[in-house]
Amino acid sequence: MLRTHSCGELNISNINQEVELSGWVQRSRDLGGMTFVDLRDRYGITQLVFNMETNATLCEQARKLGREYVITVKGVVAERSNKNLKMPTGEIEITVSTIEILNASKLPPFTIEDNTDGGDELRMKYRYLDLRRNPVKKNLELRHQLSMETRNYLNSLKFIEVETPYLIKSTPEGARDFVVPSRMNAGEFYALPQSPQTFKQLLMISGYDRYFQIVRCFRDEDLRADRQPEFTQIDCEMSFVTQEDILNTFEGLTKHLFKAIKGVDIKELPRITYADAMKYYGSDKPDIRFDMKFVELNDVCQHKGFGVFDNAELVVGINAKGCSEYTRKQMDELTDFVKKPQIGATGMIYLRYNTDGSLKSSVDKFFTPEDLKLWAEKFNAQPGDLILVLAGKTEKTQKALCELRLEMGNRMGLRNPDTYAPLWVVDFPLLEWDEDTNRFYAKHHPFTSPKPEDLALLETNLHAVRANAYDMVINGVEVGGGSIRIHNKDLQKRMFSVLGFSDEDAQIQFGFLMNAFEFGAPPHGGIAFGFDRLCSLFGGSESIRDFIAFPKNNAGRDVMIDSPAAISQVQLDELCLKIVKGNS
Amino acid sequence: MLRTHSCGELNISNINQEVELSGWVQRSRDLGGMTFVDLRDRYGITQLVFNMETNATLCEQARKLGREYVITVKGVVAERSNKNLKMPTGEIEITVSTIEILNASKLPPFTIEDNTDGGDELRMKYRYLDLRRNPVKKNLELRHQLSMETRNYLNSLKFIEVETPYLIKSTPEGARDFVVPSRMNAGEFYALPQSPQTFKQLLMISGYDRYFQIVRCFRDEDLRADRQPEFTQIDCEMSFVTQEDILNTFEGLTKHLFKAIKGVDIKELPRITYADAMKYYGSDKPDIRFDMKFVELNDVCQHKGFGVFDNAELVVGINAKGCSEYTRKQMDELTDFVKKPQIGATGMIYLRYNTDGSLKSSVDKFFTPEDLKLWAEKFNAQPGDLILVLAGKTEKTQKALCELRLEMGNRMGLRNPDTYAPLWVVDFPLLEWDEDTNRFYAKHHPFTSPKPEDLALLETNLHAVRANAYDMVINGVEVGGGSIRIHNKDLQKRMFSVLGFSDEDAQIQFGFLMNAFEFGAPPHGGIAFGFDRLCSLFGGSESIRDFIAFPKNNAGRDVMIDSPAAISQVQLDELCLKIVKGNS
Repeated sequence: MLRTHSCGELNISNINQEVELSGWVQRSRDLGGMTFVDLRDRYGITQLVFNMETNATLCEQARKLGREYVITVKGVVAERSNKNLKMPTGEIEITVSTIEILNASKLPPFTIEDNTDGGDELRMKYRYLDLRRNPVKKNLELRHQLSMETRNYLNSLKFIEVETPYLIKSTPEGARDFVVPSRMNAGEFYALPQSPQTFKQLLMISGYDRYFQIVRCFRDEDLRADRQPEFTQIDCEMSFVTQEDILNTFEGLTKHLFKAIKGVDIKELPRITYADAMKYYGSDKPDIRFDMKFVELNDVCQHKGFGVFDNAELVVGINAKGCSEYTRKQMDELTDFVKKPQIGATGMIYLRYNTDGSLKSSVDKFFTPEDLKLWAEKFNAQPGDLILVLAGKTEKTQKALCELRLEMGNRMGLRNPDTYAPLWVVDFPLLEWDEDTNRFYAKHHPFTSPKPEDLALLETNLHAVRANAYDMVINGVEVGGGSIRIHNKDLQKRMFSVLGFSDEDAQIQFGFLMNAFEFGAPPHGGIAFGFDRLCSLFGGSESIRDFIAFPKNNAGRDVMIDSPAAISQVQLDELCLKIVKGNS
Repeated sequence: MLRTHSCGELNISNINQEVELSGWVQRSRDLGGMTFVDLRDRYGITQLVFNMETNATLCEQARKLGREYVITVKGVVAERSNKNLKMPTGEIEITVSTIEILNASKLPPFTIEDNTDGGDELRMKYRYLDLRRNPVKKNLELRHQLSMETRNYLNSLKFIEVETPYLIKSTPEGARDFVVPSRMNAGEFYALPQSPQTFKQLLMISGYDRYFQIVRCFRDEDLRADRQPEFTQIDCEMSFVTQEDILNTFEGLTKHLFKAIKGVDIKELPRITYADAMKYYGSDKPDIRFDMKFVELNDVCQHKGFGVFDNAELVVGINAKGCSEYTRKQMDELTDFVKKPQIGATGMIYLRYNTDGSLKSSVDKFFTPEDLKLWAEKFNAQPGDLILVLAGKTEKTQKALCELRLEMGNRMGLRNPDTYAPLWVVDFPLLEWDEDTNRFYAKHHPFTSPKPEDLALLETNLHAVRANAYDMVINGVEVGGGSIRIHNKDLQKRMFSVLGFSDEDAQIQFGFLMNAFEFGAPPHGGIAFGFDRLCSLFGGSESIRDFIAFPKNNAGRDVMIDSPAAISQVQLDELCLKIVKGNS
């Protein structure tokens, strides 16, 4: 090794030891008689010291070291006169006897500091330099820790990791596939998996009863800020279980990860039905770090002559406790917030429960003090509270109030990233009607089983069928989701037919799975966690990109290696492909 | 859970317990008054017993259970009268009180037994049923164990697992890439990685100093029996190390795996140069479970009037100890063996050192007993030995004698799959001349560094330049290989130029890496193990396919899901692609 120690481990107990260190020049300070160089590696920073009086040649050499030069030094550990107790190595320095420059460095295009001066694009292009910065390094170390802890925990429960193929078959259901032309089978294509769903179900049919895999998945979607064309899942499946068993098992995993990584004890996860999540939070991924539940006001608000309320399907509000003194400006900001196009409300009504006990609303001319008292009672409001109300079509109003609730959570400091409030959302609807294509889609995916007690509804009221499906939500983010699967060929056929597949199409695309159901498929179900998302949550960041070593930008490009790129005519010919720009 | 216990865990200590088991019907035996059913799950087999006298209805129900039905039973653990001490559960049986059929099964197309009656193709098509068989299950469990042990060992040495991208850029060097058309960047393609080589080097430049990843790799090659289009690597890289450090680190991993998985203590790995490996074994992956080293005979064999020897570049033999009594038939078999087209020798000469001390060769008319004595002395031969000699062009003769040596090893029982003889082969040549294309190729890959002492040869004798490259070989199989990398831009440019790249092409394809070298690249090197191959070696099998859950056949097809397959015109249009069968 070109070192005896790392730059993060020497301390006062090593005084007078001869050591060799290798690393990068973080910075150097020339104080005339003395030159100090901070040497950095993955493990920390150690101060090197050079003295003009004792070794002028060496000191001159040190002065010429540029930022990010890679060097190896030999020297002796000495106690610092000017200690820095914030650093693990802050009590010592190395009195250097020799320097070897292993590699020089051009001046980096941005500073390698926790707070860098580099913009997003520049840092993406020089990702290998951005990865040197402490915050990014900590993210990748966290990711490694999370994967180690996940694997060891699941292994201890007899889960077996099985690698499923990446070159599979394209299916039109769900998101768009990335495809891979086959040279040996000209004109045919593999597809990259959106998830190992069908393979993990086959493994259950094979009797592997507890499977997991930390696995890459691929979706060719138009990218949003927090989406990547390739992403990683913790993919799990179990046999001979009920929904209850799966929830308990992965609640266990979640608690273990929080304890092992963050030192946080998580209590039993609350469970809330999809219907209640929509009713009380206007979202199937509620942030329950704070309460502020929705309260319906239809019965106390309507038929008092206020048209907005009278014509609304839903009148619903939240109680922002202690906010009755919000200024006019603050109220205007909130109104502007709900009127933003992406929120889409037409306006906001408020009711101040003043600290003197009086009630003041923005619709006083339509409601008597007694009316307003009834509103306040609905919320169990206290003097000092501020009630904010929206009205309109049910779904749209729920969605808008959900955003307003989160905004109030932010303003009131109720959404601390170091507080974790996971929960289960259960009893999702099986199907979702799409107005545009005039058909049902699977809310989760086509392999999700209806609740046994709702099976009859499959023939009478498809909208009402609930699924044995569940999501784990933490701090308003869906981190995982899964379901008990169909394991019966006839029910699976029925499901495909509900989704508009002809029997023939279903057989062509999913015949292998339905046939497998006929050879002794056990009851089974599972879950998948979005690993990038989980990492970002544990890292206290909103962006998953910060937790991926080499992410792609919003156009799906890797700007560092400049990919995708053209391929050669020879390659195209071998694949029997021709590029047809414009419409073919 | 639909069970209180697995089918592998109940024993005499559980007598009289009420239990619930779920699993597959392995077989049932109707003995008139009694019916016995073997219930199987991932963990074992438990015998269920039904008695016509005590519960006729239930017994009738049990008699109707077909093979591979999935059932749940409740009952009481009882001591068997007729114990089977070969099975962990062989002392007990379950006196069943209720059966629930969870799923029926059609008759499987082959028997789910250790020795099945199903042929390869049928088992590939119904892979989910083949995976139920014990030997296949054990292979996948072994694979899981190997990956867990590898990760935990490397983690304990501060290696960090970093996921590198699967959607990267095509490069013409090396094997053929699988490519992925980009929809968002029409006419451009990603490529699937043949290995994460450049990314792991970038991670070293980023300062991550100890990286690993168990990662899928892709090569679009014409497949041989033991090749798969997608395969898995244990991919590793370290900074601030010499070759010695890498050999020691991964020798440690190998010893750990053998100890943890097989309970075998491996001694220090011998190291042999590439030149010696060729000289003594005729192969860069020698099987050293047995000795039988090559001995050159040119000096004692040539110029005695035997044209075959006199005209040969190399006369070389092996000593098959104790085989002097081989029959005429056996000798003919060996001659036929070396004359097979894939071996390619024109004939074989032998020298029997008879047990009575006399020497008898197949070329007695050219050589005197004194001549033959000299041969025998070269081999330190003893009475009872058999010397086998080949002659011809050096490389071809070495290759043929290597095959003959392995064949003799097989015949003499010297290649026990439960014996493990790992070694390092070092000092590979940097370059390999290709007669067909009239150019040099990198023996390892273009990022491998020449030995510093051979740098000058880069200008004078490219054939003679040795690399800091090494392979780990176990029992004649290359399980891993790696090198110290180039970390200097100028040397990397020189290397690309030796390989026939123009400066411009090198910059377009590998500019990102060469540019990165200019920002403080540390000395680094690494290794990659073929994980499928390693699993098969630990499992004592020659075929990697047995250790992959869902392998592809030799035409690159997954016959179970029927992939690759045609995609829709809509998909082709979105990708701006047209299929041009025949030549474009």
